Amino acid sequence: MGLLDSVSPRAIATSALLLGSLAQGVFARPSPEPKSDWVRKGPGGSGGYFKKKVHDQIRRAVGGAKRTAELESCAETTTTTITAPKPNPWAPLSNEETASVVEWLFSRGDLNLTTTEDATAWDNSIVLVESMWPNKTDAVNYLDANAAAPTKYAHVILNNRATVDAHYADILVGPLPIDSATTWSPLEFPYTKKSGGTVRNLDADQSALYSEWIYPISASIADITLDLWNATGMGLDNDTLSIWGIDPLWQDDGRVTMWSAFWNSPTGDFDDSTVLPLGLYFRSDVTGRDPSQWTFEGWLYNDIFYETTEEFRAAYWSEGFVKNSPNVDGQWAQTGQVGKVEPLDLLPPPVQVAPAGSRYAVDPEQQYVEWMGFSFYVGFTRDAGMALYDIRYQGERIMYELSLQEALAHYAGNDPMQSGTAYLDTFYGFGPYAFELVPGYDCPAHATYLNSSFYVDETCRTHINSICLFEFEADHPIQRHSTSKYVSITKNTYFVIRYVATVGNYDYMFSYSFFLDGSIAVEVRASGYIQSAYFANNHDYGFQIHDSLSGSMHDHVLNFKADFDILGTSNSLELVSLVPHTTTYSWSKTPRNTMKIDRKFIESEDEGQFNWGANSATQVIIVNENATNKYGEYRGYRVLPYTGTAHLTVKGSSNLNNAAHWAEHDIVVTKRKDTEYRSTHPLNNQDTFEPPIDFSKFLDGENLRDEDLVLWLNLGMHHIPHTGDLPNTVQTTAHSGVQFMPSNYFLEDQSRRTVNQVHISYGEGEAAVVERFGQFEASSENATCKPNYEPVEENLEAYVGDIVVRKFPFDPNNPFYQTDAIGKK
Amino acid sequence: MGLLDSVSPRAIATSALLLGSLAQGVFARPSPEPKSDWVRKGPGGSGGYFKKKVHDQIRRAVGGAKRTAELESCAETTTTTITAPKPNPWAPLSNEETASVVEWLFSRGDLNLTTTEDATAWDNSIVLVESMWPNKTDAVNYLDANAAAPTKYAHVILNNRATVDAHYADILVGPLPIDSATTWSPLEFPYTKKSGGTVRNLDADQSALYSEWIYPISASIADITLDLWNATGMGLDNDTLSIWGIDPLWQDDGRVTMWSAFWNSPTGDFDDSTVLPLGLYFRSDVTGRDPSQWTFEGWLYNDIFYETTEEFRAAYWSEGFVKNSPNVDGQWAQTGQVGKVEPLDLLPPPVQVAPAGSRYAVDPEQQYVEWMGFSFYVGFTRDAGMALYDIRYQGERIMYELSLQEALAHYAGNDPMQSGTAYLDTFYGFGPYAFELVPGYDCPAHATYLNSSFYVDETCRTHINSICLFEFEADHPIQRHSTSKYVSITKNTYFVIRYVATVGNYDYMFSYSFFLDGSIAVEVRASGYIQSAYFANNHDYGFQIHDSLSGSMHDHVLNFKADFDILGTSNSLELVSLVPHTTTYSWSKTPRNTMKIDRKFIESEDEGQFNWGANSATQVIIVNENATNKYGEYRGYRVLPYTGTAHLTVKGSSNLNNAAHWAEHDIVVTKRKDTEYRSTHPLNNQDTFEPPIDFSKFLDGENLRDEDLVLWLNLGMHHIPHTGDLPNTVQTTAHSGVQFMPSNYFLEDQSRRTVNQVHISYGEGEAAVVERFGQFEASSENATCKPNYEPVEENLEAYVGDIVVRKFPFDPNNPFYQTDAIGKK
Repeated sequence: MGLLDSVSPRAIATSALLLGSLAQGVFARPSPEPKSDWVRKGPGGSGGYFKKKVHDQIRRAVGGAKRTAELESCAETTTTTITAPKPNPWAPLSNEETASVVEWLFSRGDLNLTTTEDATAWDNSIVLVESMWPNKTDAVNYLDANAAAPTKYAHVILNNRATVDAHYADILVGPLPIDSATTWSPLEFPYTKKSGGTVRNLDADQSALYSEWIYPISASIADITLDLWNATGMGLDNDTLSIWGIDPLWQDDGRVTMWSAFWNSPTGDFDDSTVLPLGLYFRSDVTGRDPSQWTFEGWLYNDIFYETTEEFRAAYWSEGFVKNSPNVDGQWAQTGQVGKVEPLDLLPPPVQVAPAGSRYAVDPEQQYVEWMGFSFYVGFTRDAGMALYDIRYQGERIMYELSLQEALAHYAGNDPMQSGTAYLDTFYGFGPYAFELVPGYDCPAHATYLNSSFYVDETCRTHINSICLFEFEADHPIQRHSTSKYVSITKNTYFVIRYVATVGNYDYMFSYSFFLDGSIAVEVRASGYIQSAYFANNHDYGFQIHDSLSGSMHDHVLNFKADFDILGTSNSLELVSLVPHTTTYSWSKTPRNTMKIDRKFIESEDEGQFNWGANSATQVIIVNENATNKYGEYRGYRVLPYTGTAHLTVKGSSNLNNAAHWAEHDIVVTKRKDTEYRSTHPLNNQDTFEPPIDFSKFLDGENLRDEDLVLWLNLGMHHIPHTGDLPNTVQTTAHSGVQFMPSNYFLEDQSRRTVNQVHISYGEGEAAVVERFGQFEASSENATCKPNYEPVEENLEAYVGDIVVRKFPFDPNNPFYQTDAIGKK
Repeated sequence: MGLLDSVSPRAIATSALLLGSLAQGVFARPSPEPKSDWVRKGPGGSGGYFKKKVHDQIRRAVGGAKRTAELESCAETTTTTITAPKPNPWAPLSNEETASVVEWLFSRGDLNLTTTEDATAWDNSIVLVESMWPNKTDAVNYLDANAAAPTKYAHVILNNRATVDAHYADILVGPLPIDSATTWSPLEFPYTKKSGGTVRNLDADQSALYSEWIYPISASIADITLDLWNATGMGLDNDTLSIWGIDPLWQDDGRVTMWSAFWNSPTGDFDDSTVLPLGLYFRSDVTGRDPSQWTFEGWLYNDIFYETTEEFRAAYWSEGFVKNSPNVDGQWAQTGQVGKVEPLDLLPPPVQVAPAGSRYAVDPEQQYVEWMGFSFYVGFTRDAGMALYDIRYQGERIMYELSLQEALAHYAGNDPMQSGTAYLDTFYGFGPYAFELVPGYDCPAHATYLNSSFYVDETCRTHINSICLFEFEADHPIQRHSTSKYVSITKNTYFVIRYVATVGNYDYMFSYSFFLDGSIAVEVRASGYIQSAYFANNHDYGFQIHDSLSGSMHDHVLNFKADFDILGTSNSLELVSLVPHTTTYSWSKTPRNTMKIDRKFIESEDEGQFNWGANSATQVIIVNENATNKYGEYRGYRVLPYTGTAHLTVKGSSNLNNAAHWAEHDIVVTKRKDTEYRSTHPLNNQDTFEPPIDFSKFLDGENLRDEDLVLWLNLGMHHIPHTGDLPNTVQTTAHSGVQFMPSNYFLEDQSRRTVNQVHISYGEGEAAVVERFGQFEASSENATCKPNYEPVEENLEAYVGDIVVRKFPFDPNNPFYQTDAIGKK
C-alpha cells in the first residue's frame, strides 16, 4: 500500500456506481404488514406483491454534488485509492452477470417464471438474484495460497406461487458465466430443515388479503370507526385509517392466525403512524390460499373480546360502552426544532475536519479498505446489509467474516398486536433500506462514501453514498502518562465504516471501528420512531407517554457472526475469570481473603451458549492454543461488551417458536461449517415451528478445542420507551456494542507505532522539550491543505436519499444507470 | 445567561490563578511507599514526612502561551464569560483566608504546632487547610431561598506526632474571617468511628523506617543483591534498587506488619519502575514508635520463605539455589514511537475545531459553568479532585453533588507485595496529581482551561490548565429518521468537563459529559504504567507479559457520590424490570410466553445495596413519587451503565477489612445525612479494622421512600494486564462509565430544542428541500471566525505540567504567584 493515487470521495461513490456494483433483491412486501406507514402504504397501490414500489421517489443524478466547497476540494485531492491484493471474492454479481442469470432463468421452462410486472398471485417469479457466497476453504485458498478464485454461482430465490402449496425456493445457478454447462440446483445445504431448500409462503395472497378480507371487515364497522375516530379504512385513496398487524403470523396447530390493528393516519408529512395506535383489533384465521375458507374470529377493544361483529356492534351502541380517545398526530409526534432555543446554540458547533484528506485507502471497485495496518473487504446483501470479510491486522487475518445476521424486535403487551409482534428484520432486508447518508450529520463532512445496490423486480437499484468511511479523533487520548518530569501522550484516532438501515420505523446505525492498538468495535445505535401501543389497561407493559399512548416495551436483539481466525483456523475459546479466593501461602499461614484467576476452555458445543459473567468478571478470549507467544501465553483476541448488550428477555417466545434461538444468550460459539453459514434465514418467520434455519440445531455437541470457531454475538437494548422517546428515540442511550481487543497477541501495545504522539519533558524552570516523533516533518510536506470552514456551505440540497435504477434486460450500450422514478417506469 | 462578554480560554485560566483559587493540603508522603518511582523517591530526599517535595519542578509563567495561532486567536475572541447566579458556596478559601487560618493555628499554644520545614517526627504540624464543605440545607437555602451564604469554616488536618500515640486530627476552625470569636473544635461528625475526629498515624516514623530499618536490612544482604542483580539499595544517592511495599500495612491482632519488595531502577528517563519487580520480599513488624522494638520476620524468594537472614543467606549460597533473572529496563517498558510507521500516519489526522469559539459560558472566578440549559458549580479538593455541585438542567436541580469519593486498586498474587496491595488513592490525593493537561491531546485544542490548587507545607500550589471544558461533536447524530420522502437528523454535540490525576503509576482521566437530551455521563479512563509482579509460580494471578514479569491481576473500583434531587429532595428509587412472563389474556385462552414489567421501590437501607441486574434487564430510576407528569408517570432520572462498571471481586479482603465496604456492590442507596457526607476517609488505610469512616455503618435500615437520597455508584475495571499493557495501558478498553438520563422527566426529547438539525425532503426527481431551523441565519452573523488549521503550530513548548507556588505568610502586596521551584524554595 502506498500513496498511489488520489481521487475524490464523491468520485469513488460515482465510479462504484458506474462500475456496476452488486445486485440484490428486495424480497417483497412483508406480510403481515410492516412497521412503518411509508412502507406499509406500498401495497395499497399498484397491486402485485413483488411489484410494490417500496421506494417511489427518484433522485437526480449524482456526481456534480458539492458539499462544503473548501473542505471538499481539499479532500478531493488527497483520498488515496489502491488496488486490492485480489479481486473481492464476496463481490456482487456484475450487471452483465445478473442480467444473464435473469435471462437464463426465464429461458427455463421447468421454472415456469413470469416477470414480476405480469405475475399474478398464481404465477412464479424471481425474488432475488445475488452473488452466492464462496465456501470459506475456497476463498482462503484463493486469498492465501494462489488458488483460483472460487467458482461463481448466483444465489436465486424464486417465489413459486403457481401452486396451492406456495413456497419460496432457494436455488443455485452456475457456474457463471452462463454457458451450456450452467444448471440450477436446490440450495439446501444452509438449511437445518431438510425441505429441499424451500420454505412455505404465508404471504402469497397478500393482495387478496387486503382487498378481499381486511378492507371488507373494516368497512363492515365503518359506523363504529366513524363514531370513534371520524375515520374509515376501506382500501380507498382517501382512507383515514391504516390497518396492519402482527408479524410473524401465529402458526400454532397448523392454523395461520392474523391479528390486525387500526392505526390513525398522520396529518402532516411525518412518518409517525407507529405512534398513532387506535386500540381496536380483530382476529382472522387465514390458513390456506382460498379466501373463502378464511374465518373471522372476533374483535378486541379496551381489553374486552367480542367473538362476532354483531356482538361488538351491539355492545358498542349500548349504554355505558367505554369509548377511548384516539391518538392524534401533532407536533408532539413530529421531528424538527421545538422549544426554547439556547442563545449560544445559534453559533455553529465544533466540527471535525481532515486537514490532509483521508489517511485510509480504498479500492472502490473491489470495495477493499486499508487503514493503519488493518485491511478488509466489504460485502453487501439484501438481507443483512454490509458485511466485512478477511479482516487483517498487520497482514494476519483476525476474522474471516464479521457480519450482521439478524435483528429481532420483540414486543409485549396486553393487546394481541404488541404481544404478537416479533419482527425478524432480514425478512424486510437491511439492504433495501440503506438510504443515502447525510454528510456532516450521519458521518463527518470529510467522510468517503460508497454505494450499495440490491436486486428487485428484474431491476438493480442503487443507494448512492449509503456506506461511509472516515477517520475520527476521539475526544480523549489512547495513551498517556504524566510524571513530575514528563508527559507522554498519544492521540486516539480511529477509523469507522458505517451504514444506516431504516427498516420501517427504526433507524439502525451500524458502525465498525478500528483502533490504533489493534482493537475493533462493533456498535449499533437506534433512532427513529418507536412502535407504540394504545394505552388501555397495559401499564404492566410500558409507561404512558402521551394522551392514549403506551411506550410499548420491547427487546432489540441483533445477532452478529464473528468468524475469528487467530493465526489460522485452529482456535479455542478460553474463559479467564477473576474469582474470590481464600488460601494460605508459604509466607502466610493465616488464610487470606483475596482473589485469583480461573481458566477454562469451552470444550464442546454442549457448553457453547453462555452470557457475559456477573460483575464483568469473566474474560472471553479466542486463542490459538498452538500459537503461544515467547512467554508461553496464548495469542488471542478478547471479546468484551463495549457499550452494553442484551439478549432476549422472553423465554420460549410464543411468537418465535424455533425461529430465533440465536437470541437466547449473549454469546454462542460453534464449530464453523459450510452448512452453518448463517444463524438464521430471512424466511424464518414463514414457518416459525420448522424454520429453514433453526439455530438450536447448530449446537450438536461438536468439539470446540483447536477448531475453526464462529462466535455468534448478540447486541441489543431492552427498551421501555418513556416520554423522551417522543418524537424519536435518541442515540445517547439507545446503543449497544462489543469490542475485540488483542490479548497477548502482540508483545506490546501497537499504538506505539503511531507518530501522532508527543513526549514533553519539563521542569527546572526551563522551556519544555517536545519530542514529536517526526509527525510534523512529514506532514509539513504532505498536508498543505487548509480547509476554510464555512458553516453555511454544506450543500444538502444535493441530497438524493433513495435509489437509482438500472433496468434489465441489461444493455451495456445504454447508460449504466438512469434516474427515472421506479414508480414511473 | 447570554453573550455577555468574551475572553480567551487562556485568559480564564490566568485570571483564575490571579484571583487566587483554592488551597488544599497534600497529605503527605504515603506509607508504605507509594506506587510510582517518581513519587516514591521523594522521601529519600529532604527527610520530613510532610515536607516531601512530591513535585520538584517549577514551571515558567503562563499567560503568554500560544497554541495553534490561528485557532487560538479565533477562540480567544469568543469564549463567553458570565457571572454566577450566586458566589460559589463550595469555593476554596482565598489566599488571605488560608494565610489567616495558618497564622491563627500557629498562635494557638494548645495545638503546639511546628512549621513543616522545622518539624521532626516528634512535632505537630499542619497537613491540610481547606474550605469546609457547607451543610446541604444551608447551601440550598442560600441558593434557592435567598438565605445568607453558609458560614465559612476551615477544615484543618493536624498531624499530631508529639506523642507516642501519633494521630491525625480533623478540626474545624471558624467562623471565618478570623476574629476574637474564632475557635477550633474536633471535626467528628463525618466519622462513623467516635474517636473525636482523630485517626492513628501509622506513618509517623516514615523517615526512621527507611534510614533505621529498610536500608540497613537491604544492606545486610548486599552480597546477595549484588550477585543477583549487580545492584544495591542502601539509601545512598547512587542506589540502583528501590524498596517499597504493601499498602495498607497489615493491622491484624493489633500488630503492624510491613512487607517490603525490591524493584529495579529505570535506566532511562521513564517512569517505569513499577514494571521492574525483582521478586525478593521481606517482612517486618513495625508496631509502635520505637524502632528498637521493631522486628525482622523473614525473607521470601521464589515462593520460599526464610525466617531469618542467616537462613536465607545459607540457602542462597548453597548449591542448587534457583536464581531468577531480574526485570531490566528497556525500550519494551518505555513510551514513545516504536515500530513500523504506516505511511499515511505521516499525514496529520482529523482534528476537531470550534469555528465560533466556545458555545458554553464560564464564570472563572466562581468556577460556574453553563451549557445549553445545564449549569453547575465546580469544586476541587486535595482528596478527591474535582467535584460538580448544584447540577441543574433548564433551571431545575438534578443533582446537588456529583463527586468522586475514592479509587481502590486491589491486587492479588502469590507474593505478599501484590497480595497485600489495596491502594486507597485519596490517601495520596487526586488534587496534588492533577497536572497540566496537554492541549490537542488530553482535550481538543479549542478547550477552555481552569486551574486547580492545593495546600501543602504552608504553601499554596497551583496546577495551571488542569481542568478543561470543551464542546465536541460526536461521530454520530443524536437523532435521525429516514423515509422514502425525507430524512430528519440532529447533530450530537456534547459538553465535557475533564481532569486527569496521575496518582503514581496510573493516569485516571475523569470526564463528565452533558448531552442535548438532558443526559449526563460520568466516565473514567485509565492509562499509564501497570504495577506488575515478578513472574514466579504465579500464573494463577496473571499472564506472563515479559521475561520475568507477571501482569498482576487487580480490580479498579472508583466510588462516586450522586446526590440526586429530583424536583426537590423527596425522592425514591424505583427498579423497573423486564421479566419473562407466561399468562392468558382476554383474547387468548392459551397461555402465552411473553414478558412484562415488574416495578418495585427500594423501601429502606436494608435493601439498599445491589448490583446491575443480569442481562441489563432492570432499570434503576430515581423518581419523585409526588411529582408525576400529566400522564401519572413518575418524573425521574435513570441511572445506567454506559461503558461498563465493576465492583470488587475479593470478598472480605484481608487488606481492607472495614476500610472499603463501599466497593462491594455496583450501587448503594442511602438516606442523605450531613453526617454521611462522604463514603470514605482518606485516612481509612491507617486503621483498616476501625477506620474513621466505615461505609457499612451508613446502612442502618432507614426509610428510603420520599427521602433525600444519595446513590453511591461504583465504576471500575477488572484488569488482568496482558502484553498490550506494555509499556502503558490503553484507554480503548480501560474505561468505565455510568449515565444519567431523563426518564419521563420531560414530556418529550429535549434535543428537539437544538437548531443544529436538518429536515431534508426529497423525491419526485426534484432538488431536495432543506429545512435548517435558522441555524445558519444566526451563525452567519456570529461565526465569522475561520480557523486556518496549521498542523505544525501547537506550541507544546509552552507546556508547564506541574505547579506554581504561592508562599505563606501571605503578602498581598507581593505577586500573587511566583514560579520558584518547590525544591529550591
